[in-house]
Amino acid sequence: MIAWKGLGTSKNFKMLKLSTIKFSTARITHKPISTTKITNNGSNPQMAFPCLDKLEQKTQVLSGSCNIEGNVNSLENGPEPSYSFVQTGFKTYKSHKPIFFDHGGYLPEYEIAYETWGQLNAEKDNIILVHTGLSASSHAKSQVDNEKPGWWEKFIGSGKYLDTDKYFIICTNVLGGCYGSTGPSSKDPANNDYYGTRFPIITVNDMVRAQRELIRDEFGVSKIHASIGASMGGMQSLAYAWEFPDEVEKVISISGCARSHPYSIALRHTQRQVLMSDPNWNRGFYYDKIPPHIGMKLAREIATITYRSGPEWEYRFGRNRADDSKSPALCPDFLVETYLDHAGEKFCLEYDANSLLYVSKAMDLFDLSSSNREKALKTRKSTEDEFFNHTPTSQSTSVPPEPYQEKKTSATVTPEESLQDLKNGLEKIAHKDVMVVGVESDILFPVWQQREIFDVLSSIENKERNLKYFELGTDISNYGHDTFLLSIDHFGPAVKDFLG
Amino acid sequence: MIAWKGLGTSKNFKMLKLSTIKFSTARITHKPISTTKITNNGSNPQMAFPCLDKLEQKTQVLSGSCNIEGNVNSLENGPEPSYSFVQTGFKTYKSHKPIFFDHGGYLPEYEIAYETWGQLNAEKDNIILVHTGLSASSHAKSQVDNEKPGWWEKFIGSGKYLDTDKYFIICTNVLGGCYGSTGPSSKDPANNDYYGTRFPIITVNDMVRAQRELIRDEFGVSKIHASIGASMGGMQSLAYAWEFPDEVEKVISISGCARSHPYSIALRHTQRQVLMSDPNWNRGFYYDKIPPHIGMKLAREIATITYRSGPEWEYRFGRNRADDSKSPALCPDFLVETYLDHAGEKFCLEYDANSLLYVSKAMDLFDLSSSNREKALKTRKSTEDEFFNHTPTSQSTSVPPEPYQEKKTSATVTPEESLQDLKNGLEKIAHKDVMVVGVESDILFPVWQQREIFDVLSSIENKERNLKYFELGTDISNYGHDTFLLSIDHFGPAVKDFLG
Repeated sequence: MIAWKGLGTSKNFKMLKLSTIKFSTARITHKPISTTKITNNGSNPQMAFPCLDKLEQKTQVLSGSCNIEGNVNSLENGPEPSYSFVQTGFKTYKSHKPIFFDHGGYLPEYEIAYETWGQLNAEKDNIILVHTGLSASSHAKSQVDNEKPGWWEKFIGSGKYLDTDKYFIICTNVLGGCYGSTGPSSKDPANNDYYGTRFPIITVNDMVRAQRELIRDEFGVSKIHASIGASMGGMQSLAYAWEFPDEVEKVISISGCARSHPYSIALRHTQRQVLMSDPNWNRGFYYDKIPPHIGMKLAREIATITYRSGPEWEYRFGRNRADDSKSPALCPDFLVETYLDHAGEKFCLEYDANSLLYVSKAMDLFDLSSSNREKALKTRKSTEDEFFNHTPTSQSTSVPPEPYQEKKTSATVTPEESLQDLKNGLEKIAHKDVMVVGVESDILFPVWQQREIFDVLSSIENKERNLKYFELGTDISNYGHDTFLLSIDHFGPAVKDFLG
Repeated sequence: MIAWKGLGTSKNFKMLKLSTIKFSTARITHKPISTTKITNNGSNPQMAFPCLDKLEQKTQVLSGSCNIEGNVNSLENGPEPSYSFVQTGFKTYKSHKPIFFDHGGYLPEYEIAYETWGQLNAEKDNIILVHTGLSASSHAKSQVDNEKPGWWEKFIGSGKYLDTDKYFIICTNVLGGCYGSTGPSSKDPANNDYYGTRFPIITVNDMVRAQRELIRDEFGVSKIHASIGASMGGMQSLAYAWEFPDEVEKVISISGCARSHPYSIALRHTQRQVLMSDPNWNRGFYYDKIPPHIGMKLAREIATITYRSGPEWEYRFGRNRADDSKSPALCPDFLVETYLDHAGEKFCLEYDANSLLYVSKAMDLFDLSSSNREKALKTRKSTEDEFFNHTPTSQSTSVPPEPYQEKKTSATVTPEESLQDLKNGLEKIAHKDVMVVGVESDILFPVWQQREIFDVLSSIENKERNLKYFELGTDISNYGHDTFLLSIDHFGPAVKDFLG
C-alpha cells in the first residue's frame, strides 16, 4: 500500500511530504507537483487538493511501468487494482471473413470472446443469447474456467430465471469492446499496429451481426430461442431480431429503447468529451503510454450518476459527509462524492478508453427507424462492393475534418414523422414475441422510451405474436438504470414466464 | 474571424493545414498538435478530431496574450466573445469591516456589486431583494448605465411581475462571484495577490449576510419587503429570512430547496472535478496565465444538461444530426451535441473558474437544518473571536491535506431524524409569509425538494402567516430548471399576487 500524506498544512511548505512508498518496481522520486505559488501570507491559508495529488501520483506510477499488454506490476501493490481488462476463461470465435459496417469501414478479420452455460440440446433449439451493457464482459456468470461471479450471476443458473437446466446460454463481449473481442485496443493485421482511432465507427446492429456469425459458425445453429439484454443489451436484443427476424423466437429488451434519445445522447456526449479532453488520451493512441486514467475516472463518475436515482441516494447518502469532523473541501467531501470518486477510480484502468468511446457512440447511433436502417444498409453494401471489387475503401465520409455546423434543414423532421419512421422500422419485428421491461426511476433510459417500443409495436396489428410490457414503479425499485443488475427478483419471474 | 480547416483527410498529412489566421496581436505558428502516429496504412483511415483542434488552437491563442485584468484582445476578432467577466454599469458597496464565514476563514474587507431599479419610497419599506443563480451578475434588468437586457429583463419593470412603479428592486452579484463582487479572482489586501484557492469556503448564508450589510449601509434600511430568487437565488431567499427573520416581510423561493440533496451535489461534483482536472486550472492560480477554458467548457456542458429536460430536447433536437450528410463522429455530431458544445464554448471565458467552484460548493453546503446552522454559527463565532483577540486565524480545519475517508459513523442519520432536524431549522422562519414555486420537469432541483420546503413549513403550526405552494406541471413547462428564465408568464402572476 502507498501511504500518502500529501501537502502539509504548515505555512511554509515547499514541497510534498511523502512517507515511504513501496512499489514492486522502483521507488518514485517526487517532484513538487504543481506550479502553484507557495507563498502563504494572505488572509487565509492555501487550500489543499489531496484528490489531485493522488491523480498526479497515479500518473507518475503509470508513466514508470505501464504495459498495456500485460499487467502493470507497479500498481499491483499500489493503491489500484492491476490494469486488467484482459479477462480470462472465455472462448474465442475467430472470423477470417471481413465484416462491413453500417457507416462505412470494415475489419479484415475479427474475434468475438464468449462464454456459455448449460448444454446445447440435440435439436439445437435452446440457445438464449445474452447481450451486455456498455462495459460488461462475456462473464455473465461464473463457470469452470473463471469462477469469479459474473455480472448476472444470480439471474442465470440451474432453476434460475435463465435456467441452465433448460437452455444453453451464450454471452459475448461486444465487437469494439476490450474483453477479448476485437476493438480499438486490438492490432490491425494490415499494419500490426493498434487500431486506436483508426477503428471504424460501429453500431449496435454491427455488433449483433458479428454475434450471429459466431452462433452459426461455432454451433451450426440457424435459429436461437431468445435474445435478451438490458441497457445496450436491450438495444442489441431488438437489433438481433431486426437483422434476423426469422432466426430468433423471443425477444426481451430491458431498460433499453428502439432509438436513442437526445437526453441520453447528451449524457454520453459529456462522458466522451471529458475523456477525449484528457491529454493522455492522445487522440486514441495511448497504448504503450500513460492511459487517460483521469478522463476515464471523470467519465465514469458522470456515468455513475446516470445509472442510479436521486431517491436511492437520498436514502443511502443523504447529506452525510465522508468525515464530518473535517471542514468542507473542493475535493470529494460529501459521502456521495467519495462514492463517485471511488466508482471512477475503480473503473479507470479496468476498461479501455477507446472502447468506451466507440461503444458509447454506437449507443447514440442506435435507431431502428426505417430511414436510418435503409441508409446504413446502403452504406454497408457500398463499402462491401468497393472491397470485393478490389478498390480501396475510400470512406472519406468517416473522417470528418471540420467541426460540424448545424444545418437548419436537418432539423425539420417532426416528432410525428419521426414516430412513423420508427413504426416503419419496427414493422420488421412486429410478428415476433417481444417483452419490454421498463423501470420508472431510470434517468438514462426513461420509462417512456420502453413504453415507446411497446406502443409502437402494439400499433402494428398482428394477432399471432405475444407482446408484453412490464414496468417497475418507484415503489418497487429506486435503483434507476442499474435495476437490471440489482433488483432481478422483481422482473426475473416475468422473464422466466415469458421464455416458456 | 478565424477560418479553420484543421486536419486534412489525405493519407499523408504531416501537420495541420491552417488557412490564414488573423489575430489582432500576432499570427500563430502552428506546430503539429498531437503526438498521434501519423502512419495510415491500416485497414481504415485515421479519424479526425476537429473539436480538439479547436480547443488546442484556443489554448494557443490564450497563451499568447491572455490578460485577465482586461480583455483578451486577440480573441476579439476570433471565434470567441472577448474575455468579459468584467461587467459594467453596476454600483459597488465596499465594506471595510471584515466578514467571517460559516466554515472558518474571513475576508478583511469586501465589495458587493449591485444594481437597482425603481425608487426607494419615503417609508423605505418597498425594497425587493432579487437573488441570483450560480453564474448570474447583478444585471437582472437593463438600466441607464448598462442597457443590455438583463437575465430577468421581462420579469422586472414598470407594471411587470416585480413592479418598479411600486417597488425598489436591488440585485447583487454574490460574494464569491466574479462580476464586481469580491471573489477568488479578487486580490487579497494582505498580500496584494489573487485570492485564488486561498479564498475561504463560503456558504449561501455567508452571501446573504454580506447583502444585508449593503442594504443597511447603503440605504439605511432595516427591513425589506421581499426576498426573491430562483435556483441558488431560491436558497438565498430562504437564507436571508433565516438569518434575519425580523428584517424581511415576504419570501419567495423558486426552484430552490431548503437543503441540497445528494443527487444535486453529485451533478455539481462532476462539474467541479472536471474543471479541477484541467491542468490549466493549476489549483486555482491561473490568473495571468492560460485560464482553464477546456475544464470550464466541459463543466458548463454538464451543467447545461441539468438545466433542461429530456422532453424539451426530444421536441427541440430529436435525433437530428448537425449535418446529416456527414458520417458519425466522436466530436459533436448530433444536434444536441453541437448545442451543448456551443453552450460550453460560450461560457468558458465568461465566468471565473474559481468562482464556479466556490459558488457551486456553497450550493452543496446549503442546509437550513438546525444542527448544520448551529455548527456554522459556532465556527464563525470562533473565527471572529480569534480575529478580534489578535491571534491569527488558525483555520487548520479548512485545509484538508488528505483525501477524506468515509467514516461509517457519519452515515447514521436516518431520513426521519434528518427531516426533524430540518423542521427544527425552519422553525425560525415559520412565522413568515413564504411562497414556494416548483417545476415538475426540473432534474437539478426536483419538485419534491420544493414540496419538502412547503411540507415542513406547513407542519409547523402558525396561523398568522401566508404559506403558498405553486407548481408548474410538465403540461405547462418542459424547460426544467431553466423554467424561471424561460416561462416567466406561468408563475409571474402568482408571484405578483403574493407580493401584494
